[in-house]
Amino acid sequence: MTTEQAQLPNPHRVVIVGAGFGGLEATFRLAGAPVAITLVDRRNHHLFQPLLYQVATASLATSEIAWPIRYLLRDRAEVTTLFATVNGVDAANKRVLLDDGDTLSYDTLILATGAFHAYFGHDEWEPFAPGLKTLEDATTLRRRILVAFERAERETDPARRAALLTFVIVGAGPTGVELAGTIAELARDTLPPDFRNIDTQHARVVLIEAGPRVLAGFADDLSTYAQRSLESLGVEVVLGKPVTECSADGVMYGGEQLAAKTLIWAAGVRASPAAEWLNAPADRAGRLQVDPDLTVPGHPDIFAIGDTVAIAGPDGKPVPGIAPAAKQQGRYVADTIKARLRGETLPPFHYKNSGSLAQIGKHRAVIDFGTFKLRGVLAWWIWSIAHIYFLIGLRNRLQVAISWLWVYLRDQRAARLITQGSSKVVGPAATRDPAYKISKPD
Amino acid sequence: MTTEQAQLPNPHRVVIVGAGFGGLEATFRLAGAPVAITLVDRRNHHLFQPLLYQVATASLATSEIAWPIRYLLRDRAEVTTLFATVNGVDAANKRVLLDDGDTLSYDTLILATGAFHAYFGHDEWEPFAPGLKTLEDATTLRRRILVAFERAERETDPARRAALLTFVIVGAGPTGVELAGTIAELARDTLPPDFRNIDTQHARVVLIEAGPRVLAGFADDLSTYAQRSLESLGVEVVLGKPVTECSADGVMYGGEQLAAKTLIWAAGVRASPAAEWLNAPADRAGRLQVDPDLTVPGHPDIFAIGDTVAIAGPDGKPVPGIAPAAKQQGRYVADTIKARLRGETLPPFHYKNSGSLAQIGKHRAVIDFGTFKLRGVLAWWIWSIAHIYFLIGLRNRLQVAISWLWVYLRDQRAARLITQGSSKVVGPAATRDPAYKISKPD
Repeated sequence: MTTEQAQLPNPHRVVIVGAGFGGLEATFRLAGAPVAITLVDRRNHHLFQPLLYQVATASLATSEIAWPIRYLLRDRAEVTTLFATVNGVDAANKRVLLDDGDTLSYDTLILATGAFHAYFGHDEWEPFAPGLKTLEDATTLRRRILVAFERAERETDPARRAALLTFVIVGAGPTGVELAGTIAELARDTLPPDFRNIDTQHARVVLIEAGPRVLAGFADDLSTYAQRSLESLGVEVVLGKPVTECSADGVMYGGEQLAAKTLIWAAGVRASPAAEWLNAPADRAGRLQVDPDLTVPGHPDIFAIGDTVAIAGPDGKPVPGIAPAAKQQGRYVADTIKARLRGETLPPFHYKNSGSLAQIGKHRAVIDFGTFKLRGVLAWWIWSIAHIYFLIGLRNRLQVAISWLWVYLRDQRAARLITQGSSKVVGPAATRDPAYKISKPD
Repeated sequence: MTTEQAQLPNPHRVVIVGAGFGGLEATFRLAGAPVAITLVDRRNHHLFQPLLYQVATASLATSEIAWPIRYLLRDRAEVTTLFATVNGVDAANKRVLLDDGDTLSYDTLILATGAFHAYFGHDEWEPFAPGLKTLEDATTLRRRILVAFERAERETDPARRAALLTFVIVGAGPTGVELAGTIAELARDTLPPDFRNIDTQHARVVLIEAGPRVLAGFADDLSTYAQRSLESLGVEVVLGKPVTECSADGVMYGGEQLAAKTLIWAAGVRASPAAEWLNAPADRAGRLQVDPDLTVPGHPDIFAIGDTVAIAGPDGKPVPGIAPAAKQQGRYVADTIKARLRGETLPPFHYKNSGSLAQIGKHRAVIDFGTFKLRGVLAWWIWSIAHIYFLIGLRNRLQVAISWLWVYLRDQRAARLITQGSSKVVGPAATRDPAYKISKPD
């Protein structure tokens, strides 16, 4: 059926940039429409970002949360998947510009290009406090976290050992909270039997937030619960103190210097440069301001969705940068395109609060659906089942369920691999100590 | 019990370098002995190398075939796992030298440092024809293979497209045969529905071997069967032609140039520099010549095992560089150390042929136990079950079984991820073509 439609002499050409939740959902929803779709992404895989922190903390394998885009669309003859990097839009000539000089002509364009982590004008902090947006970011963080424990095991100087066993997460949104809770569990439950010279339970996990509470997007009482849960896992929660410096030695906040060898940035995002491509108005985080039908002002043939746009929900608050919001927008845009092809129009996009979830270690989660709120063990089970449900494909569901079962029952984490670096990354500078000899087991 | 023994005032210090099959098996077998063990590896994980080609061909995830070494030894209080790189042995003072200047004193030393791929004096070929020894090698090959298909999908020049769709494997030992068969299946069964502009079934997989037959270590009739099986999968088998040049454009053999953008080196290994560390006699491949009790001549306190040694089996043929041989040697050395501590000696090491197995795509494998030989579907089932059995831990067995089930039933491969590189690795040079426009689906 779709093949037949694609064989229409001049199908309406839709180019979708970005195969995240928004772009992929739009592609799925356009099934059956008389269109020819080109879906462009600079990665070959769709990434289930909500679980990326579990790759960074060695709980899941990379392939359990990422799927080849073209595989997901293999049965859609009218969809061409393109592994390429977009670096501009020529709106006058209705063309997308690729970084290798090629161009893609469109009748309708959907920009779903997402966001990346931002350092508020301090990009020089990135090498010391990497963020978490891609699979490589996750394996980099995993390597840094695991190597810190390895270096601590060989370090004899108490101050240096303490700095190696101090993990600082900057920013207490869902990603920061989930990372802090999981690193605390890794140190407290998973690693202790494996080390001989250090007690990993003495590791410090410090979560620093400039605002007044953790999980600012959630209801007050859930924030309080999340904070107490983190503290019960041993996480030190620091509120109301912006970070003023990140370096190889640690982090400065509220006038104090904390010596820490592992910093993780979860404090903010900046939109992809879609607004710059179009020279269109954007907010301070670079997010495109779009019309109520999610088109870019002055460009009725260009939609923008997901983390790269700023739009207010029915309650006047900004629509959050979460997967369900991007998917709702992807569906809306696909429906709008189909309606236009029928000569119809749709009412403006209406965001339905699809809830926010965050996990804080084993057995604890918070769920905020606005009217419906939940916390504790039941919330944790709902969180777990929901995330398995939202994974794509039975195989991934089975494999993630097995990985989680082992974390749950045995505190084993599936992917404690240090890759892209042999022991040399442990670094001689910190461990070379003429007096140092490997201590014997006692 | 082991704790008690480790608390002996002066336990016998065993240092084991390398946590591959040999070193790990020796460590396991020393359980209960009155020794203090330090196991050093420059990786944090033990790698199940026989399945590494399945990571390279996207069938398995990295974490399914690798386990943190310290996790495997967490219950052994007398074992200290050290994530460090050895770069020498000071035999006179009975010390192992680490690259960061630290040293490890030993009473008995076991060198189980393995081998790496060798280019017979042509190290300049390595960038064009990478080998397969580490997890990073596997993800690099996976990226190259998958990117070649992506580039071909965007290439309009027929000659360049053909070169992108030509995969050359140099060397027809088990690794070369298994890689060739799996890449052929990937192109023939897994990828076709995913691409729009190319027919991946037209990909050429060329296996080039300098010797007269594939799987030279197997019986003649199994070699013949393996070759026929490869050919039935569409692999072109070239025998008796050594490769004389590898470059960015392809490979030269028997005076002919074959244009190919993906070359894989499976033609030879060289031992790790253990012989150099000891200034001890070695064969042309750098393998230590050891005494019948696997000690290094002149060094009764230094054992060497696995791929870094050359030793003849009872049939006079060299003991092959396979996991079961390394494990047998690890067990023998552990038993010898225990016997010495009791004041006893053991008879010389006796290699028992534990058989060779190779898989050639779905449903076909060869098994050669010397007297017992098997090929075909039953051999393939035995191969599959044996490999799942030899994996460590129930979780990995379940997850690998699930991954294989999906390959078996649906030709889906779990880990088709291009990592460590966005679409930029596709490379503008080969695809930039002013006349090129993305073709529409037809």
